[in-house]
Amino acid sequence: MAHTGEFDLIERISARFDPAPEVTGIGDDCAVIPQKSGLDTLVTTDLLIEDRHFLLGDISPEDLGWKSAAVNISDIASMGGKAESAFLSIALPPGTAAQWVDAFIGGFKALSDRCGVVLLGGDTSASPDKLFINITLLGSCPHGKAVRRSGAREGDLVCVTGPLGDSAGGLKLILERSARAHSEVSDSLPPSSGDACETLIRRHYRPEPKIAEGQRLAALAGLHAMMDISDGIASDLRHILKASGVSAEINLSDIPLSAELLSICRSRGWDAGELAVSGGEDYELLFTMAPGTEPDIPYWPIGRIVRGNEGNIRWIGGNKTEYQGFTHF
Amino acid sequence: MAHTGEFDLIERISARFDPAPEVTGIGDDCAVIPQKSGLDTLVTTDLLIEDRHFLLGDISPEDLGWKSAAVNISDIASMGGKAESAFLSIALPPGTAAQWVDAFIGGFKALSDRCGVVLLGGDTSASPDKLFINITLLGSCPHGKAVRRSGAREGDLVCVTGPLGDSAGGLKLILERSARAHSEVSDSLPPSSGDACETLIRRHYRPEPKIAEGQRLAALAGLHAMMDISDGIASDLRHILKASGVSAEINLSDIPLSAELLSICRSRGWDAGELAVSGGEDYELLFTMAPGTEPDIPYWPIGRIVRGNEGNIRWIGGNKTEYQGFTHF
Repeated sequence: MAHTGEFDLIERISARFDPAPEVTGIGDDCAVIPQKSGLDTLVTTDLLIEDRHFLLGDISPEDLGWKSAAVNISDIASMGGKAESAFLSIALPPGTAAQWVDAFIGGFKALSDRCGVVLLGGDTSASPDKLFINITLLGSCPHGKAVRRSGAREGDLVCVTGPLGDSAGGLKLILERSARAHSEVSDSLPPSSGDACETLIRRHYRPEPKIAEGQRLAALAGLHAMMDISDGIASDLRHILKASGVSAEINLSDIPLSAELLSICRSRGWDAGELAVSGGEDYELLFTMAPGTEPDIPYWPIGRIVRGNEGNIRWIGGNKTEYQGFTHF
Repeated sequence: MAHTGEFDLIERISARFDPAPEVTGIGDDCAVIPQKSGLDTLVTTDLLIEDRHFLLGDISPEDLGWKSAAVNISDIASMGGKAESAFLSIALPPGTAAQWVDAFIGGFKALSDRCGVVLLGGDTSASPDKLFINITLLGSCPHGKAVRRSGAREGDLVCVTGPLGDSAGGLKLILERSARAHSEVSDSLPPSSGDACETLIRRHYRPEPKIAEGQRLAALAGLHAMMDISDGIASDLRHILKASGVSAEINLSDIPLSAELLSICRSRGWDAGELAVSGGEDYELLFTMAPGTEPDIPYWPIGRIVRGNEGNIRWIGGNKTEYQGFTHF
């Protein structure tokens, strides 16, 4: 098996991508991208670190490549932008196989292609120990039309673009499976629920950033604030509230939950509502809009922006008054 | 001493930078930068990894911050561009002190300010082990005027913007000093040469990217190819030759060497020419131009582009026929 020291990693990666002729990508000191008046450039960057953001033994290289692209593309989606070009820095642990790199790039490219993203550059290195990935993603939107977190207004509806908690449920299943693989006693574990399990695990590993939805929402006059749900709405909504100087009331019973999540939670005694509110990495969009605004995409109103600049969330209809989002630090 | 888990790292960093009012920087999902017609966006990204690109015990946080900015700004300089905005991802080992972060950002900002670069975003994380830094830098140049590696033509002069080998000499001094600190027997070591040592060490830790020089060179009609010297000309010139389908002859006696490097090499029995050719990280510019072109900056012609699409370099005036550049893999 060829190891990363034995092949030209950059050629191996760049051969898979084919930028537009007016763009200079991999192979010089910088990528060169023509600017267009009337547009704003959007830039986001995300670190993914072994044993911090993922466990190498639990995620396939294809899924890791997909997810690395997804978390960044989702940030562009959350501003209502078009995702365009990616810059991938990757530091590989000793002995990483060429096949691993190919599979990683395959997953990265599968989602990038679907979202119109081309890899234009990056950096590669050996890592002394852990795998490190950093992706910078560039996109664009009409000038002045990026949807920020700071625009929420009293009376706005708070909405999401899809069911929450699936990714957190998928992660619990992955950890359960991983523990089972390391355990001698497997009889006492709850039965697997087949397809529903696979669906949630897939939602965790292969989130689908809402690029088209973000652009359609951003075009609405009544759309006031937006972000993507990476740390769970308990944490993410608070960012919107603080940036906007408002508070919110959320009806827990209005939060959309998938049939798969409900089924798995029933069989395992997990709290689906807790996973939906505090679990992260769904990469759905969370937005606030004036009442009467009618998005032409599926969406679920889950609450309302209210007066009060403390950034408080009042959770209605549940047995808890406080939820925590997921934080890395 | 406050540790990184105990303070808001992002606020700590963003409070130091103040972007122009038309730009949205840190605090939303993406930075938002207006595009201007008639310009091209330049993008470069670089990974810096503890124990791979630097030793934490040997470099101060200020110097590491400076150098992290320098290696990226130099890539923009090498295309003839203006450096504009930076995105810093940093993963900190357990127990990193807040003071360390402040000093790192201080060094990063000192060079960024001088070059007109503003930090507009990034990502932070705890690292399970080593320190990882990734910087993405955006810049711009007039549309179609980025100087690529691929334009060198037969008959061009090959030139550099300053003395070579200082950084490699500085690195040797740092390693010597580090070995001495770990050694019981210090009497047999060569005497330190004071200021000359400090100059070379400073050239290694605090390279000065040639942003103004790159822009002035790029404006010349006769300027055909350019890159920055990061791995040593033995390696870097070959990139230009291969991209351009030409070969080169280099006169070793024409390569500019600083008085400090000559003095240190004399006292230690080191080969200054070898350091100049094979040592990297000088971050001077290496360019080729039509004879008769007259740059209005200091520069040194060191050879000529010749026929032959093999990318060969003939070294004239030395006792070696082959030099290797520095490679990370």
